[in-house]
Amino acid sequence: MLGSTHGTLTTDSRRTRAIACGERSGPVVHGRPAQTGDLDVSGRPLHAGVPDLDRFFRPRSVAVIGASDAEGRPNTGITRQLADWAERVGARLYPVHPSRPSVFGTPCSPSVAGLPEPVDLAVVLVGDPLPVVEELAEAKARFAVVFASGFAETGAEGEAAQRRLTAAVERSGMRLLGPNTNLNAFERFRDDLQGPAIALITQSGHQGRPVFALQELGIRLSHWAPTGNEADLETADFLSYFAEQPEVGAIACYLEGLKDGRSFLLAADRAARRGVPVVAVKVGRTETGARTAASHTGKLTGADAVVDAALRQYGVIRVDGLDELQDTAALLARARPPRADGVVVYSISGGTGAHVADLATGAGLRLPVLSEARQAELHQWIPEYLSVANPVDNGGHPVGDWRGRKIIDAILDDPEVGVLVCPVTGPFPPLSDRLVRDLVAAAEQTDKLVCVVWGSPVGTEPAYREVLLGSSRVATFRTVGNCLTAVRAYLGHHRFTTGYHSPFDDAPRTPSPSYRKAQALMRPGEQLSEHAAKQLLRAYGIRVPREQLVTSAAAAVRAAGLVGYPVVMKASGARIAHKTELGLVKIGLTSASQVRDAYRELTDIARYEDVPLDGVLVCQMVEHGVEMVVGVTHDDLFGPTVTVGLGGVLVEVLRDTAVGVPPFGEERARDMLAGLRGRALLDGVRGRPPADLDALVEVVLRVQRMALELGDQLAELDINPLMVLPQGQGAVALDALAVCSR
Amino acid sequence: MLGSTHGTLTTDSRRTRAIACGERSGPVVHGRPAQTGDLDVSGRPLHAGVPDLDRFFRPRSVAVIGASDAEGRPNTGITRQLADWAERVGARLYPVHPSRPSVFGTPCSPSVAGLPEPVDLAVVLVGDPLPVVEELAEAKARFAVVFASGFAETGAEGEAAQRRLTAAVERSGMRLLGPNTNLNAFERFRDDLQGPAIALITQSGHQGRPVFALQELGIRLSHWAPTGNEADLETADFLSYFAEQPEVGAIACYLEGLKDGRSFLLAADRAARRGVPVVAVKVGRTETGARTAASHTGKLTGADAVVDAALRQYGVIRVDGLDELQDTAALLARARPPRADGVVVYSISGGTGAHVADLATGAGLRLPVLSEARQAELHQWIPEYLSVANPVDNGGHPVGDWRGRKIIDAILDDPEVGVLVCPVTGPFPPLSDRLVRDLVAAAEQTDKLVCVVWGSPVGTEPAYREVLLGSSRVATFRTVGNCLTAVRAYLGHHRFTTGYHSPFDDAPRTPSPSYRKAQALMRPGEQLSEHAAKQLLRAYGIRVPREQLVTSAAAAVRAAGLVGYPVVMKASGARIAHKTELGLVKIGLTSASQVRDAYRELTDIARYEDVPLDGVLVCQMVEHGVEMVVGVTHDDLFGPTVTVGLGGVLVEVLRDTAVGVPPFGEERARDMLAGLRGRALLDGVRGRPPADLDALVEVVLRVQRMALELGDQLAELDINPLMVLPQGQGAVALDALAVCSR
Repeated sequence: MLGSTHGTLTTDSRRTRAIACGERSGPVVHGRPAQTGDLDVSGRPLHAGVPDLDRFFRPRSVAVIGASDAEGRPNTGITRQLADWAERVGARLYPVHPSRPSVFGTPCSPSVAGLPEPVDLAVVLVGDPLPVVEELAEAKARFAVVFASGFAETGAEGEAAQRRLTAAVERSGMRLLGPNTNLNAFERFRDDLQGPAIALITQSGHQGRPVFALQELGIRLSHWAPTGNEADLETADFLSYFAEQPEVGAIACYLEGLKDGRSFLLAADRAARRGVPVVAVKVGRTETGARTAASHTGKLTGADAVVDAALRQYGVIRVDGLDELQDTAALLARARPPRADGVVVYSISGGTGAHVADLATGAGLRLPVLSEARQAELHQWIPEYLSVANPVDNGGHPVGDWRGRKIIDAILDDPEVGVLVCPVTGPFPPLSDRLVRDLVAAAEQTDKLVCVVWGSPVGTEPAYREVLLGSSRVATFRTVGNCLTAVRAYLGHHRFTTGYHSPFDDAPRTPSPSYRKAQALMRPGEQLSEHAAKQLLRAYGIRVPREQLVTSAAAAVRAAGLVGYPVVMKASGARIAHKTELGLVKIGLTSASQVRDAYRELTDIARYEDVPLDGVLVCQMVEHGVEMVVGVTHDDLFGPTVTVGLGGVLVEVLRDTAVGVPPFGEERARDMLAGLRGRALLDGVRGRPPADLDALVEVVLRVQRMALELGDQLAELDINPLMVLPQGQGAVALDALAVCSR
Repeated sequence: MLGSTHGTLTTDSRRTRAIACGERSGPVVHGRPAQTGDLDVSGRPLHAGVPDLDRFFRPRSVAVIGASDAEGRPNTGITRQLADWAERVGARLYPVHPSRPSVFGTPCSPSVAGLPEPVDLAVVLVGDPLPVVEELAEAKARFAVVFASGFAETGAEGEAAQRRLTAAVERSGMRLLGPNTNLNAFERFRDDLQGPAIALITQSGHQGRPVFALQELGIRLSHWAPTGNEADLETADFLSYFAEQPEVGAIACYLEGLKDGRSFLLAADRAARRGVPVVAVKVGRTETGARTAASHTGKLTGADAVVDAALRQYGVIRVDGLDELQDTAALLARARPPRADGVVVYSISGGTGAHVADLATGAGLRLPVLSEARQAELHQWIPEYLSVANPVDNGGHPVGDWRGRKIIDAILDDPEVGVLVCPVTGPFPPLSDRLVRDLVAAAEQTDKLVCVVWGSPVGTEPAYREVLLGSSRVATFRTVGNCLTAVRAYLGHHRFTTGYHSPFDDAPRTPSPSYRKAQALMRPGEQLSEHAAKQLLRAYGIRVPREQLVTSAAAAVRAAGLVGYPVVMKASGARIAHKTELGLVKIGLTSASQVRDAYRELTDIARYEDVPLDGVLVCQMVEHGVEMVVGVTHDDLFGPTVTVGLGGVLVEVLRDTAVGVPPFGEERARDMLAGLRGRALLDGVRGRPPADLDALVEVVLRVQRMALELGDQLAELDINPLMVLPQGQGAVALDALAVCSR
């Protein structure tokens, strides 16, 4: 519908682009990523190669298996589109059909075996693709695309069929896209658009349509990978390939699930290292979404908090709506790096300025008050009674003449200013047409970002359609909300990549000395006693209270003397949960007689409650800190993850926790703490001293190390509470729960 | 630009509408609202009349003071627009100018005094409007509009000038719009559009432009009130007038500040009683926004949390962007009351369904799983392997033929379903054109709400422009986000108004017996001692611990015996804050000797810290409850407000509080508690019993009563903590701070 009006790529420009595409750095391998010996201590890869997909997107030869030109057959339309596409990219076309002599005038090969050469790309349109895929692998095709559905998305039987497809390609060097995919990769892209492009990855063809349609608004699209069920090639492969392409300014993704968490992180890491922004819609914020998505492409959506944390760690910008995906990706693809993080709101109405400034500040953007000198300069052209501090209100009239451009240039000239946001709330051609032309002209002459919000709900005005959309230097939005979302993402992306240090570079490859000590403590299939769990923590250098496990009242009194009064006493045994609720904890015991009574009471309760004990713990009492929790859980997609949050009753009520997806470094651990709603508790409130943040960060990192080294052996770990003492005094794990896997 | 293509209203239809507009209920007064003796106990009105603005919007005679037809004068364009408007509404036009014999061929009156009749409406274009306004009042004009700026928005001098304007109209029966307003009320509205309309109130003309432009998308607009500085007529006047007009389906507001909180609440109450939805952008979420808005129209933006609470109490729907204002107001104006609150997402793509269902669930909408029978029915037309549980995925093909309409009707027929949301992510004319036509046709034959999201970023497609926008029964959106915001508002509005009970009906009019007791305790200009503050609470029936104020160690021991061990002891005196931090509180004292020691220690500390005491409080120790805070603060716009939140350190760290703007009833008090993030603490967690919610609600209502009765005498009240005991055991104010105004 669209491309037909925009001519075709000439052979020359194709060659130029192919050469340009070759300018990449970093290792590129053909076929599956090199799974070298470069693994972290948990056995997960620290590195993945970039699949060479040049011949997928620009093949020299294309076979269409199941080609048709018979009226009324669904494959006929597909064959025609593939034939057109092959012609545009300059590929030789080989229709394959057992009985047709030719399709659309091109001679048919009766079978895959009969193809005259090993093709770069084979598109499989037949309903039962497995035998064909096996033949293609045999015939040394480089890439196969399988359209057929009815695989993992349909349940167990389909999953088995999909595994057979995967196995067929794994034995060969061939790569496969699909099944359950479509023609999106072979659409007609506009080739008359200039500048950096968006590359698109979707797990639903329909959901990519709005981003594709951005071309009609003048925004260039370079690739579209509809990954379908990802039996072989997955989102991560396209992500890392696109991150290497010089024409790609941003990667937009519509994701329902991930095939493999680690592959995705490695690909996102590659994009982060190269500074290529990735903007993603990821379904699965709610149960409904997760369930529905799983039945669509048969992939796991993952626990959303974990997915969210993983995306954040690698700077992937998550958005909710496809409109935000469009607008954010378009801005990030084309805007140059910011020169400053200050945002100025400039409008012809004080009301508009107030409103947009309110929303911008609420969105976390910084609106610097312009200097006195700058304001004086602006007042040369703007009446004195209007405020030009930021927002800059020009009152309307100056926009209609030569002053309009002067004002824009003066704002953009300010070193504090990185972004100019100009909302045109209601187009009034005598003013808005000139305003828009001035903004477009000014944007051509500055490195800074100029954003216009065209607030008319109509959107057919020439100033919008012709002037604004005609500029690749002005970022144009239809809503203030989307503009602010995109600007925040833009500033955040550059802040993130400037300071980016890949956590894979520092991830541990070999077990620490702690590992052997820890190994000796593991009891497969059991929940460890509190005492044993604390030994595990000690093995990793995490402080626990002075404590002794005793089995008599007399020993308890001796232990209390050694530990030092006041003491806490707790029943200890495997499988004890909810000790406090059962009355199995006694605190603040200050004398031998209290200890003796407590011993008797604890063992009595345990007997009545039928709780088997391995003894009673006599522990040093540790007070006057902030109670936190630190834990390990296993995620289906990403393996072990580390959680940190506020402790005590608060954890259950407010769920104020942050997740870290290993590997992560100290900076991420600090970010996790900074993101807690109750973080002020750590800074010290109501005259309390600030807590020992460094010690808390160290515990989080040691727990990560433990989680990675023990891997699947450690099903669950929960330190609750971790008492974080005042600065300089450390942190002590007062209680711990550890469950070993079978 | 727009209206010119749509003809003008005939005299007959005008007459019909004028009669229709007269069909209102409720008291309508001409001139200022009747400030009857109907006041609440705080002296605030419980009732406001509706100003009769019929002759403002449909005057029989219009005078233009400062009229001009001289080339190049700004007033010339304005005069021309007013003359056109007067002709359209059938009003006699009287230009007024001291020296011109005529303007645009209409004879001029040389002065206001020379006008041939008392005009309905006078538009004042002169720079110094005060003398003219006085003359108009003298000449018994009904309404004056003042365009001139330079009043309250410019600072103290302008404020004084504005007060003079207000005084001039207050002496007369005339009402005034402005100053600092414009022509928006007199624009050319499309009169060819049918169905319920939006009425618009804006405090910035520019910010109303996008809602006005909705007419170009087929959505009817009936009125536009640009209220400017509100020297006399204010937002509340238009709100209550519009709520009475039968053609108004929804009221859209762009608000920067409010002139008077109570007037606004009474107007919002009127709209809520009549079930007329009010959708508002209210600037001032951030400091930047508040500051900028104040300098724009010179009004107070109010403390945002209080404004937000006030809007919520009266069902005013607050949105952020003008695009949300457009979309939400348009939906609410035109949709019929919901038949059920279930939402079904229906699409031609499983991916789209998964995504929209995820967002809809996240937005708090209920997506019921369709019954087995309904699913079986849908599977007559939709292949078995596609999920039709909700979201309903039709796979695409059924949309292209007769099955498409069957599916839509079957969904709408379901009694669980109140809303059908159909996202058309990417238009594909062979499918989407027919889909859209079927939706429009189905919407004509159902009471239920049909929403379409047209996801194309282009928006020039005929199926969108002609088919969707041509229907007044289908609600069309450009983004999923805006659709879900509007649907949530729609369901929420009807839920709210169905259960609405005006708090003004039950507001106390006369002081309670508590008031006299409380009066005796007030000490103007002083902070009361803890003991006195608790007496104040007791006066209002709020429980405090058993306690005695003592001035010797011996008396302390005697008091402890009476109060009952264990006891708490606290230094008591006016102006003591931060008792705990200073060590001026001793808890858990269990013996006479501990009490004696504590008395000595507290008085010693007070001496060293130079804190004057009126004695030491010996209090019953109350434990094992949930610590809350309840307080009173004064808001510039709304007077005394009541705050409730989690107590202890949590208050400061998480600011987990809710505000109630009096008058409010028990239901609102319960809503406030339900809105707390930590509300689960009240329900009982970790085996703790649920707290006595009824007692907490009762305390909130008694504090409200106190706040209303004591009014400005009570500058501040803070109960912290209020210990809420387990269900059935009540709530006890353990500490209280009360400050009396001078």
